[in-house]
Formats: sequence, structure tokens, C-alpha cells
Amino acid sequence: MIASTMQDDFPLTVPMILRHAEALHGEARVALVEDGRTRHVTVAEVADRVHRLTGALRAWGVRPGECVGTFAWNTLAHLEAYFAVPAAGAVLHTINLRLFPEQITFIVREAADRLLLVDASMLDVIVDVLPECPSVELIVVCGDVGPVDLGALPVAATSYEDFLASGEPVVGEVADERAPAAMCYTSGTTSQPKGVVYSHRSVYLHAAANLFAGGFGISDSDTVLQIVPMFHANGWGFPYAAMLAGAGLVLPGRDLTPPSLVRLIESERPTVSGGVPTVWRGVYDHAREAGADLTSLRVISCAGSAVPESLLRDWVGLGVQMYQAWGMTETSPLAAIARPPADARGRDEWYWRTRTGRPVPGVEVRAVGEDGAVLPRDGRSVGELEVRGPWVTGSYHGGRGAEHFDDGWLRTGDVGTVDAAGAMKITDRSKDLIKSGGEWISSTQIEDRLSELPEVVEAACIGVPDEKWSERPLALVTVRPGARLTLADVHSHLGASMARWQVPDRVLAVPSIVRTGVGKIDKVELRRQYAEGRLGGVDLPAP
Amino acid sequence: MIASTMQDDFPLTVPMILRHAEALHGEARVALVEDGRTRHVTVAEVADRVHRLTGALRAWGVRPGECVGTFAWNTLAHLEAYFAVPAAGAVLHTINLRLFPEQITFIVREAADRLLLVDASMLDVIVDVLPECPSVELIVVCGDVGPVDLGALPVAATSYEDFLASGEPVVGEVADERAPAAMCYTSGTTSQPKGVVYSHRSVYLHAAANLFAGGFGISDSDTVLQIVPMFHANGWGFPYAAMLAGAGLVLPGRDLTPPSLVRLIESERPTVSGGVPTVWRGVYDHAREAGADLTSLRVISCAGSAVPESLLRDWVGLGVQMYQAWGMTETSPLAAIARPPADARGRDEWYWRTRTGRPVPGVEVRAVGEDGAVLPRDGRSVGELEVRGPWVTGSYHGGRGAEHFDDGWLRTGDVGTVDAAGAMKITDRSKDLIKSGGEWISSTQIEDRLSELPEVVEAACIGVPDEKWSERPLALVTVRPGARLTLADVHSHLGASMARWQVPDRVLAVPSIVRTGVGKIDKVELRRQYAEGRLGGVDLPAP
Repeated sequence: MIASTMQDDFPLTVPMILRHAEALHGEARVALVEDGRTRHVTVAEVADRVHRLTGALRAWGVRPGECVGTFAWNTLAHLEAYFAVPAAGAVLHTINLRLFPEQITFIVREAADRLLLVDASMLDVIVDVLPECPSVELIVVCGDVGPVDLGALPVAATSYEDFLASGEPVVGEVADERAPAAMCYTSGTTSQPKGVVYSHRSVYLHAAANLFAGGFGISDSDTVLQIVPMFHANGWGFPYAAMLAGAGLVLPGRDLTPPSLVRLIESERPTVSGGVPTVWRGVYDHAREAGADLTSLRVISCAGSAVPESLLRDWVGLGVQMYQAWGMTETSPLAAIARPPADARGRDEWYWRTRTGRPVPGVEVRAVGEDGAVLPRDGRSVGELEVRGPWVTGSYHGGRGAEHFDDGWLRTGDVGTVDAAGAMKITDRSKDLIKSGGEWISSTQIEDRLSELPEVVEAACIGVPDEKWSERPLALVTVRPGARLTLADVHSHLGASMARWQVPDRVLAVPSIVRTGVGKIDKVELRRQYAEGRLGGVDLPAP
Repeated sequence: MIASTMQDDFPLTVPMILRHAEALHGEARVALVEDGRTRHVTVAEVADRVHRLTGALRAWGVRPGECVGTFAWNTLAHLEAYFAVPAAGAVLHTINLRLFPEQITFIVREAADRLLLVDASMLDVIVDVLPECPSVELIVVCGDVGPVDLGALPVAATSYEDFLASGEPVVGEVADERAPAAMCYTSGTTSQPKGVVYSHRSVYLHAAANLFAGGFGISDSDTVLQIVPMFHANGWGFPYAAMLAGAGLVLPGRDLTPPSLVRLIESERPTVSGGVPTVWRGVYDHAREAGADLTSLRVISCAGSAVPESLLRDWVGLGVQMYQAWGMTETSPLAAIARPPADARGRDEWYWRTRTGRPVPGVEVRAVGEDGAVLPRDGRSVGELEVRGPWVTGSYHGGRGAEHFDDGWLRTGDVGTVDAAGAMKITDRSKDLIKSGGEWISSTQIEDRLSELPEVVEAACIGVPDEKWSERPLALVTVRPGARLTLADVHSHLGASMARWQVPDRVLAVPSIVRTGVGKIDKVELRRQYAEGRLGGVDLPAP
């Protein structure tokens, strides 16, 4: 029996990424927007500050495997925390700035953060929840501390730069690649937020996948514009990938409005970026109006929700390769990219561009039927998409949500097909599906159709229990002030494109529709309100 | 204490590479040269045959972790063995066709190969050593078995296609990424061959590194021409990288002569390849004479020995990016690439192209002084280069050669500098260095200078013990028939470019210079012959 002689215990870690950047790319540049002005630092300077932050965290007494929370925009301090917190042996716990206070409280309590790095501009939000978060011992205030009276805060506080100066530089090392490096909570569309904990190994392998030439192909020729907030799923992994590749990095701070981003693209000429469809629509439209040049961009990732083909066509028309990508907090997040194969396989390139994506090397995807059987890769068989791989979560923090896992695969909650070239096409969220008389009804399809009615401002659809059909769709709409909408209008419109059994029997007019902290319709809450008889609203008049 | 929730035990394996190829790139093509004709198969067809070979190996009774030897050129069967042997849980033991019979015997005995896959054309070599290799139980003959009487062989034998048909298809899985996948012996320039055993993990990570856009950037747009013999260090990893990337692959069989390669480049239009300087010199020269077009090639790797700048300039002049690369059997082999940084850092691109290389992400390099201290990365401090990383060997099979390892780093035996951008420059092999009076003398420099003399056919230089100086250089030359060379001629020529103490006091004229199986000067043997007083040769006449 032969044994491997390789350095198989050489750990894949976050410090390894920084070591490579320091050894090869110390002169690469990081552009920072601070108070509306842009300044530049080198990777060598960033690395020096990371080592100081690592030392300061150790000197403060950060414990192995404990969470250090960040509540910050895309700033230098946040970038430094991305590397220093894991290097110090702790876990970078990025907190979503857009959550409701109750969710922030829940998350900080569960993660037991003792130290929080907080942008000065967001201090009020944290101070309000502090009474409910007894674990917090120190707040490190990043950015312009000027107007803040640190002594008046209810817990100990210091400025980021003072904190940085409080320890000797330490070049962190991590011996076990399976040690936790970072933690991010899912947005909790359908339940309480669930913690996903990334290992050093998963962070490294995910960063490396962003360098593959068949994907985003980030290299030292690139400059990466970090639009995705760094409190979302490792900032989609771009900060780590840019460092590993030796690419430049542009951190826009907190102003992510189209005019600001367009200005930054023109001045810093980034080549790579990623963002949600709303951002790219805004940037495109603003640039067209302003006559601005976006063509420094070589490739951009568009993800987070379904990407309209019109948006893809607009960007590709500029000569910028916009690829739809797919992933979740649970997948680090990059899992698939809708990049046409080199030879297009005899299909139109738009077939490939309008798929949800093909898995990047390292990630595997399958569609599973209701009976648990793996479906054929024929592009037609519809089932729940399941995913696995070294940077896919295999559980949730605290063992919650065990129903999301299936024999080593993550059940994504997305429903769709997989074709013979591995291309997925998501047709619905399983959570948004309504099972009625043994058949699925898509709630998102109903919402889309309802939104087409000129009288409707916003629409939601949930499944509600039904004795005969087991479940039936229930629609909610907010009606434009002064407009009049009848059930007959709705049925007539929906009936034009949907089967009769798919059309909701009841449509409620409501004053507003409750949403989650990230702006998604909160269907968990809607179903709960329905169950408890407090959904409110009035049925649309019949005729 | 938080714990990672990632699928950290999802193993990085050779079967994972094939699964990805099958899921996404089943239509990619593999071109095969067989008996002078080229035919094409798809990756899906290759995968089917791999599963059959895996099943046949299992049915035959291959044991977990045992070696299966290959003695083959760059053929379909060899490609299939690359995937099937590791998938069956065994170790792909590639045997160098160019070794001497005693070395082959040594290797097969130590690896205890029970099954050998042998090209029909090489059967004689194996048959000759079989009496000394009692472990061998079955020979599977690949290629044209026509003239071979399988029944007449001294052990059981079968044809490859019959063997393939002998088992049910099995899709192999490997649970432990640290399990051994492949084994290759170093050429043994300075000692007996030493076994390097690659793990599934190291093979996967090395393949992935070949996909990085900042390196060779292999993608599904590429077609890889496999020139490097597949019995050398995983064929430089190209077969695995091509499959992971979904690239096409061209397997030229055994004819690696320039006319054949040039023909293949023109007909198959590969975009990526790798080879030693001799091959690329031959291909370039032949193509220029024949007026052939080599410009389908996008990027080629040139490695294995120091790359002359003239060769780099010729290829770059064609518009083909030839990069000098550096590695060893011990480094899987890709460790560094001499690719200019995107911005060239204010230096001429030829500074970067003529370095030995900059480490690819995942590999780390340092120079270490004689006292064991790590030297500054200043491009000037000369020391032994040491390397580490997840696809670098940390030991040799059987625990041999422990002196080659230094606290987790592999001592490469190469001596040189590292600069602030991570670029290495190898100035000598430490084994070829002669320590004389506390100073190093470069034996290769002496050999190069001697070779410049028109009277000299070939030259060698070794260090021999000296009471006063501890070691002195001793030169050996073969003199062109009819020519006359004196010691004064040699001293005059060497003295023009070398210090007096660096010049060998003695120069022996010998009839020939002993070389190893891969054509390197066998200095171990020369030193042994000197020690035993049987080096032979005559001193050059003084005047």
C-alpha cells in the first residue's frame, strides 16, 4: 500500500491568499472612496495594516473560533478585517446593514460577538440594539469618528486607527484549513436567519475558482470594482479573489448610487465587477444619459435575482461580457455562470446566456424529483436543484434547517432543469410553489402577471390550506390610489396566460405588503398572519 | 467556538475532474494519432471507456493503494489509465520509457506493480526485465497487438481492448482526497530514482492551477497538444487540466519528431502546449523551413531545462506566448511561470520573461542561505531555492532522501535569487556547485564555456576532493576527431570570463561522457568512477 508523499496537510487558508499577494503583488493598487474623494494604497500597505489589525485583535484577547462582527460598507477597514480576523484565528461575522433591528439582535446574540467593527455612519443602529446584545464588549468605530463621543457609548469604544495602533504586527497563520474563517447569515426570506460558516479551505477554493479562465478569469491584468456589499456572502468572494490574482481593487465606500458608480468606472477604469440586476440597470441607464464610458469593464457578473434578457443584451451590446451567475450565501456564493461554451454547441449564444448558469469546476448540480430520484439531464425534467462541492454548506450553524440537506447535497429551494451540457434553468423557487390538487402553481408567475395590471402597485401570492385541493393560491395586491380593480378584471387577465386551476380564487386588496430586510416579500410572515386570522385586507369586488 | 458548516470533507479527487468533464463537456474532442492516422473521440466516449477500465481493474482484483504500472506513449489507453487507475482506488505508476533496464527493474520492484499497461511497441523492453520483476502478474498490451504472441510471454497477458471488455462499467469514487492517485520516479540524476506519490488532492489542485487566467488559463476555448510524454510528472498535468477545463486534447502517440508535431499543429490547430526547449527549437526550425503555420498556438510552456532567450524571442516573435515555466517531478510539476506582470512594473518585459518564473497561486518559494536563514527577496541574495505548497512533495516514497526537506519546505537543489515581485532566477544547481576554498564554483558554467571551444564535442565538470581547497573542479571533454586541444587553450579561453580560482586545474580528454536515461550528464557515476580510480581519459597536453 503506497501513501501520498505530497504536502497534503499544507493548509488552504486566508493567510495563504495574503502571503501570495504580498510575495508577488505588493505594488497592486487599492482605490478607496472616502468622503467623496478617491485615494490609493498599495497591497503592501494593506498587508502591513492587516498584520497590525491581526496583532491588535490578538492583543485585545480575541479567542480562537469566536465571531468578530462587522457592520460596515465597502471600506479599507472592512477589507482589512476580511484578512485579519481569520488570520487572528477568529471568524469574520459580516452583518447585513439592511436588516431590521430584531434580526440584527438575533444574529449578534446567536454569534455572541464580543467585538464589533462599525462604520461611524451606522453607529446609531448598533447603539439601539446594544441593550439586547449583552455579549458585546468593544465597539471599534471605522471611518470619520469626528462627531462621535466614544465615551458616551454604552460599551467600551475606540476608533479603528487607535485600535490598529494597539498591537504589534502579527503575520497570522492558521494550521487547520477546516477552521472557521467567516460567517454570514442568510436573509431569512422564509424563516429566521440561518448562519453559514465558511472554512479557510472553502474561502481559498472559492477564490481560486474566480481565477479560472473559463469563468471570470480574474488576473493581475484586472481591476475589480467591489459593488456587492461586503456584508453579503463574502462580497461574492471578490476581495479574496482579487488579492489571490494580484488584481487591483476599487472600494466605493457607501455610495452605491448609479451616478457615483459611473463616475468611479470612468476614473478608475475597473475591468471586472459584480452586482444585482437593479444596480446594473441603473448604471447602464445613467451612463447612457450622461454619455459615460463603461467599456473599461471586461466582464461583469449579474446575480441575486433572475436577470432580464434585455439587461444582458444592453450590456453585451456595449461590448461588456455580462454573465448571469448563480449562487447563494450557502454556496460562498459562486456556483454557476451562464457563459456560452466556446463552440456554442450548435445553439444560439443567447440560449446559453439566458440559462441560470453552468457549474464552475468544483461545484456539482443535479435536479431531484419529488420522489427523491435524480432526474435526467435533458433540459426538460423539472425538479428541485441540489448542489454540492467544497465551498457549499453542508449544514447550518447550530444544526438548524436539517431539512435543507439531502445526503451530502444542499437543497437550494430552486426548481428547474439541467441540460446535457450542465446548464441549469431555474423556473421557480420551491418555497414559492403552491401544490394544488397534485399540481404545482407558481406564486411568482401569478405575482408577475398581477403586476402587469395598471391598477396594481405591488402584488404577492401565497399558498393557503384548502380542504379539497390541499393548497390554493391566495393573492394580495395594493391598488393604485383612485383606481378600481375587480376580481373579474384579475381573472380575465390571468386567464389569458394561465390555466384556470392556477388562477387564485381570492384576491385581497391590502394597504401594504410586508417585506424582509433585504426587500423580498416576507411570505413566512404573510402565511403566519393568514393562519392567525390577522392578514387583513378586503376581497376585491366581484364584478 | 463556531465550527465550519461547509462540506469540508467533500474530497478533491481525480474522479471529480472526470465528473465535471462529463457533466459539462461531453462533446469536447480528443484527437488521437494512431499508426500515422488521426481520429477523434469525444470526452463522453473517453469517460465511458474509463468507467469500463475502472470496472475491469476492480474485476481483476486491483487492491486499494497498490501501483498499476504504465509503460506507454501519449495514447488513448494512457489517458484512460490516468483516470481509471486512480478511480479504481489504485495508483497510476507511470514508468519512464527512456530509463535503462536496471532502473526500470529497480522501479517496478520497489513499486511492486502487479499489472502493467504496456505499449505493444515497447513490449521487448519489459519482457527483458520481467525475470527480475517477480511482482508482475499481468501485462495488458496497448496498441497494435497484431504481431505479438500473447501466449508466448513469460506472464499472463491480454490485449487492452479485451481487458476493457472484461468488467462491468464502474463510476469510481474516492472518499479520501489524501489517498494516493499517482506515482512518478525522479530521474535520479544524482542518486537512485526516488518515488514521488501524488494524492488525489494534489492532482486536483494542480489541475485547477492550470486554469488560472494569470497562468496558462486553460478553458473550453482551448485545445491542448500533449507533447510532454505522459510518463513525465503527470504529463505536466495537462491531461487533467484539459479535462477539468473542458478543453480539447490532442494525443500524438509516439512520434514526437518536429515534422510530425508541425503537421499535427497545422491540422488540429491546438492553442496550448508544453515541452522542453529542444522540442520547441525543433518545431520552430522545421516550421520555418516548411513554411508551416504555428499560430493556432496561444500559449506554450517551455521548461525542463534553462530556456535560451533566443528561443523565447523566436516564438514570441511569431505571436505565440511562450512562457518559461519551472517545476520538478516533486512539484507535480507546475510551480512557477515567467509571465510578465500586467504592468511590467516599470521593467522591460524581457526582464520578466528571462526569469525562471513567479510562483503560481498555491506555491510558495524562498531562497535560503548556507546558514539556513531565509534570504531577503531582493533579486540579489543567492541561496538554495525552497518550495512548498499543496502539490509539492513533502517526502519521498519509503522515507528516502530526508535531507531534501527543510521544515516543511522542499529543497529544490536549485540555487538562485528571488526578487520583490516573487520572480526567481536560478543561477545553478546546488548539486552542480563545487565548493572550493569556501567559495562556490559553477560546474555548469565551466561546461558552457568549454562547449564554446570548436575543438570540444561535449564537456562535463565535477567536483573532486582536494586537500587544500576541500574541492576542486575537474573537467572532462570529448575532443573532435582530428582536432588538437591543449590545457593552455582551455585556460586561456576560460580565463577570459572566469576568475583564476574557478578554472579547473586538470582537464581530461575522454572517449565519451556517461549520461543518465534522460540524457543528463551522470555526475554521480562520474564522481564514483573518479573515486574508484576508473574514470579513465588522459590529461590534455600542457602547451
